This record gives sequence, structure tokens and C-alpha cells, in this order.
Amino acid sequence: MTKPAIRILGIDPGLRKTGWGVVVCEGTRLAFVACGCVTSSDKLPLAERLRELHDGLSAIVCEHGPDEVAVEETFVNKDAQATLKLGHARAVALLVPALAGLPVAEYAANLVKKTVVGIGHAEKAQVLAMVRVLLPKAAPETADAADALAVAITHAQHRQARALRAAAMMRA
Amino acid sequence: MTKPAIRILGIDPGLRKTGWGVVVCEGTRLAFVACGCVTSSDKLPLAERLRELHDGLSAIVCEHGPDEVAVEETFVNKDAQATLKLGHARAVALLVPALAGLPVAEYAANLVKKTVVGIGHAEKAQVLAMVRVLLPKAAPETADAADALAVAITHAQHRQARALRAAAMMRA
Repeated sequence: MTKPAIRILGIDPGLRKTGWGVVVCEGTRLAFVACGCVTSSDKLPLAERLRELHDGLSAIVCEHGPDEVAVEETFVNKDAQATLKLGHARAVALLVPALAGLPVAEYAANLVKKTVVGIGHAEKAQVLAMVRVLLPKAAPETADAADALAVAITHAQHRQARALRAAAMMRA
Repeated sequence: MTKPAIRILGIDPGLRKTGWGVVVCEGTRLAFVACGCVTSSDKLPLAERLRELHDGLSAIVCEHGPDEVAVEETFVNKDAQATLKLGHARAVALLVPALAGLPVAEYAANLVKKTVVGIGHAEKAQVLAMVRVLLPKAAPETADAADALAVAITHAQHRQARALRAAAMMRA
């Protein structure tokens, strides 16, 4: 029995630039669909910037009709203001697919690097190189788009384990 | 010439509980309309919790049709995880009125306290007491709802100065 093809949208949230990437996963096979960036203008008030990200991501969800969505977990650093900004962008990245009724998974940045490159503290260039190996047809123009594809690849690798865990918890 | 009545929605964001309060401001007169809390279940995944806050706040905006919205600025503290959670809730509080095409103002917690109580480091009980003085018909059941009314009162006091500043900047 062949497994059904699953369309996965990966999102790497950022207030100025939110990267996104769509892949199709069929069993253990992965194929590139599309990737890009949604931006917000730093000349606008915060509420308007969040609306720009919302509208951009909603358009991506409409256009590519993903089955599942994966969002990178925010890296909490010492700069509280930067953490807060990222939190705002990330909330929109989580909310848009939730409003569309899609399941949303979250992955820590270290797990994404470990899954794609093999080590948890890989450099951005290593992530980009491995994304190109795993998805030869992808030519992400920005690091954010490459990171978003890496998040989608991570979900493709981990989604079955997640589903089994969730099913086990439902039975428990 | 009498000034038109303006309906203001104040929001005090929080992931578990987001307080909201609606007042009508007519010149220097303030009147209470309604207040309450929108909650999210901590048993749900983060994306679903944000959807709950979105749906609850959207219903408030639909029901009360505010002209302007004011949101309390997040208090950035040393607990990065708490700051991040608040950032997620606050993004939804900013996004919902922006999606409805409403102007959204932001006020620092200290400015809200200074405006309502007279001192920037007032206690929660002092804020509640002054909200009851300024809006005798309000009986906020939670501290979050009282804080949201305080944010709405702050916007009522500051909105004309903000509008004048914005107009001056447009001319400059």
C-alpha cells in the first residue's frame, strides 16, 4: 500500500521577514513545491505589520493548500525586546494555519538543524547546503526561505512518530 | 459644537486570560459599556490557544463595534519564557482589531497607571479603585478586566494629543 502524499508548509517566523517553504512528502520521498518570504514594513505600526504577515501567510495557505504546518520554535535569547518581536511574528505564524483548521507542529531550532544537517549547532550555510541536497529543485533565495524548508523537512521526518505518540496518549 | 461620541476598546493581553473593556468617550465625559475576559485553555496546543483568543476578541469587536482600540504594552521582564508567552497573546490582541480595519494604539503599563492613578508604579488595587471612581457603573470581576478598562481610559485621555501629533507629522 502506498502512503498518501502529504503537503507540508514550514514557517520560519520573523517580524521583518517570515520565511515559508512547501514540500510534498510521500512515504520517505520528499519533493520541493515552492518557497519564499513574507515581509512587513518597519515604517508601519506593529498592529499593521502583524496584519501584513497575516495577509501574506493566509495567501500562501490558500494558494498551496497544505495538509499540515510546522513552525520553528522561537529561540529565547538575552535580548528581551528581540524575543518579544519574534514572539509577535511567531503568534501570527501559528494563528493563520490554526484559523484554517490545519494541525500545527512546533520544532526547536536545534532539532531542525539536527534533523537536516545531523548536528544541533549547525551553521546557516550548512542548513542551506543540506536543503539543496534533500530538495535538488529548491533554490531558496533567502536564508529565511531555506530555514522554512528545513522546518518542513523536519516535520516530514518526525510527523509519523508524533502521530503514533498522540494516538498512544489518546488510548492511555 | 459637541464632540462625537467615540467607542474605545481597551485590551490587557495575557495567554491564559486577556482582559477587555469598552467605554464611550464624549468630549471629557466617560461612560462604561462592558468588560470581561477572554480565556484560553492551557490543555490545548499553543496554536489552538491563540485561535481561542482570536475568536473571543473577534466576537467582542463584532458585538461592541469600537471606533478605536488600545492595547497595553508588554512588560518585558527577566523571565524570557513569560515575555514570549505574553508576546504571543499580545500579537493576537493587536492583530484582531487591525484585521477589522480599526486604529490600534499602544500604551506602556506605567503610563496607564500614571494616567489612571497618578503614579507610574501604582498597585493593582489602586488601579481597580480608580477605575471604579471614573466608571461608577463598572464592576469588573477580574483584575484583567479592570486593567483593560484602565487602558481604555488612558486612550480616552491621550487620543487627542496623539491625533494632533500624527497630523503635525503628516504636515512635516
